[in-house]
Amino acid sequence: MTAPLFDRVAFIGIGLIGSSIARVMRRDGLAGSIIACARSDETLNTALELGIADEVTKDPAVAATGADLVMICTPVSTYGAIAAAISPSLKPGAIVTDVGSVKASAIKAVLPHLPEGVHFVPGHPIAGTENSGPESGFDTLFEGRWFLITPPPGTDQGAIDKVAELWTRAGSNIDYLEPEHHDQVLAITSHLPHLIAYTIVGTATDLEDHIKSEVVKYSASGFRDFTRIAASDPVMWRDIFLENRDAVLEMLGRLSEDLAGLQRAIRVGDGDTLEALFRRTREIRRGVVDAGQHIPPSPEDEPPSST
Amino acid sequence: MTAPLFDRVAFIGIGLIGSSIARVMRRDGLAGSIIACARSDETLNTALELGIADEVTKDPAVAATGADLVMICTPVSTYGAIAAAISPSLKPGAIVTDVGSVKASAIKAVLPHLPEGVHFVPGHPIAGTENSGPESGFDTLFEGRWFLITPPPGTDQGAIDKVAELWTRAGSNIDYLEPEHHDQVLAITSHLPHLIAYTIVGTATDLEDHIKSEVVKYSASGFRDFTRIAASDPVMWRDIFLENRDAVLEMLGRLSEDLAGLQRAIRVGDGDTLEALFRRTREIRRGVVDAGQHIPPSPEDEPPSST
Repeated sequence: MTAPLFDRVAFIGIGLIGSSIARVMRRDGLAGSIIACARSDETLNTALELGIADEVTKDPAVAATGADLVMICTPVSTYGAIAAAISPSLKPGAIVTDVGSVKASAIKAVLPHLPEGVHFVPGHPIAGTENSGPESGFDTLFEGRWFLITPPPGTDQGAIDKVAELWTRAGSNIDYLEPEHHDQVLAITSHLPHLIAYTIVGTATDLEDHIKSEVVKYSASGFRDFTRIAASDPVMWRDIFLENRDAVLEMLGRLSEDLAGLQRAIRVGDGDTLEALFRRTREIRRGVVDAGQHIPPSPEDEPPSST
Repeated sequence: MTAPLFDRVAFIGIGLIGSSIARVMRRDGLAGSIIACARSDETLNTALELGIADEVTKDPAVAATGADLVMICTPVSTYGAIAAAISPSLKPGAIVTDVGSVKASAIKAVLPHLPEGVHFVPGHPIAGTENSGPESGFDTLFEGRWFLITPPPGTDQGAIDKVAELWTRAGSNIDYLEPEHHDQVLAITSHLPHLIAYTIVGTATDLEDHIKSEVVKYSASGFRDFTRIAASDPVMWRDIFLENRDAVLEMLGRLSEDLAGLQRAIRVGDGDTLEALFRRTREIRRGVVDAGQHIPPSPEDEPPSST
C-alpha cells in the first residue's frame, strides 16, 4: 500500500455520496484516518459499524480540527453555516471540497468564510442512486462517471490536483467547468428531470383511489423509472431547486413551451409533428450511449437488471 | 413436449413485442407453425434468419389464411386496415388478438370488421424496452410482468382462456380490465411519462450548441433515463398519443397544473412545499417496489446494470 493521499479526512455528512467515497478511501488506503460528522446518532453509529469512520462527532468544528481534507457532503443549504462553523478549526493548507449539485451558490456560501491559506475545491460527482444514508453507499458508484471540478478563479492548483487524484482513484473521469455553466448544464440533465419525475408521481398520488391503486400495480416502464427518480432524497433536492433557481426556471420555461406545442399536436391530431420529434430524440440517445453514460449504477449486491 | 397450443399462428408485425412472444412460442413449442407478415424485406428476412418464423409474407390476408391465432403486433393506427384485409381469410373459430397500448380504440378499429365466429381478445403486455425490430426481442421480456386483457362484452370465454394461457407460458401475470379504464391507467403510468421524456429530450436538442454537447457528455441520472424512454419507437408512440388522446390530454392537464404550482414554489423560495411533495412521492416508489415492478427488463446478453 502506498502512503495515504490525505493524513486526516473529515466528512461533514456521510450519506450515499459521502459514504461511497469514504469506502473508496478505505479500500485504497487513501486516508490515514477518517472522522465523520452528522446530526443523528443513527447515522454516526452506522458509519462506525460499517467501518468507514474511525471517529464520529456531531460538531463540524471538532471534525475539521487538524483535517487535511474536509469533504462537505450535506445539502447545499447547510454550506454557509458549516463553513462558518469549521472556519476557526481549519489548519493552514487544509483543503475543503464538496459534492453538491449546484456550484455557483456553493462557492458563494463557502468561500467568504474560509481563512487565508485554506483551499476550496468545489466538485460534483455525476453519480448517485435514489437511496439515501451511509448504508446505501458502495465503492463502485463513481466508476466510469464524471467528476466535475468548478474552481473559482485563483484556486490553488496543487489543491485541485489532489482532489482530482482522489476521484481518479474512485474511477471517475475528471473535467473542469465554470460554476455557472455547470449549473446550466445540470439544470437540464438532472434538475429538470427530477422536478418532472417528482411532479408526475405527485400527480399520480392525487388521482382518484380506484385509478391510483392500479397505477402502482401496473406501473410500466416510464412511470416505474419516474418513481425511482422521485424517491431521491427530499431535502437534498429541495435545496437544489432553491439554490439553482434561475437556471431551473429558465429550463422549465422552455420545457413548458415545448409541452404546450405537443399538447396542441395531440389535440388537433397532428401526427407528423409528434413523429418528427420522436425521431429527433432517438438521436440524442445514441449520443448518450456513445458517451458511455447509459448504464445506471447499482451496488454489486443488488440483483442485476436481467429478470 | 406437449401438443402445441395453436396449430398455425400468424404474426402481423414482428417487432420487439411480436418477436419476443414468437420466441416464447418456439422455446415452449406452443405453435405448430408461424407465419410472419411485415412490410419490409429486411424485417421478414431477419424473422426467417432468427428462426422465429417458418414462412413470411407481405400480405396480411395470406398470413391470416388458415391461422388459429392472429397476433396483431403493429402500431394501433394500422389496425382498421389490417382487420379489413384479413377478415375474408379468417377461418371460423380463429382467434385474433393484439398487444397495443390503447384498448378502446383498438376494439373500435378491429371488431366491426371481423366475421361471425371469429373471436377478438384485445390484450396488452406491460413490458418493453426502448429497442425496436425483431432482432431486439428476447424470450424473457414478459416474465413477472402483467398481461392485461380487455375483452369487449360477449367475448368467447374459451378464446380468452387460450390467450391467457399463452401469456402465462410467457411468464406473465394475467389481469382483466375494462378497455376505457385500462386506457386511463396507462395514460398516467406509461403514456404521459413517455410524452414528458420526449419533450425534455427535445428541449435539450434545441439548446445552444455549447450547452447541448455537454448535456450529452454529462448526462446524469434523470436525463439518462429520459433519453432511454425517448428512444422508443416513434410511430408506435405517435399512434398511442393520437389513439388515447382524451385520457392523455386529461392527465397532461393535471400535470401542467401541478407543475405550475412547483414552478411558483421554486420562484418564491417555498422550500416547505417542495420538500412535502418530495416526501410524498417516496411512498409511491415503495408501492411500486412492493408490487415487484421495479426491475427493468433486459435481454440476457446485455451487461447487467452493475458497472
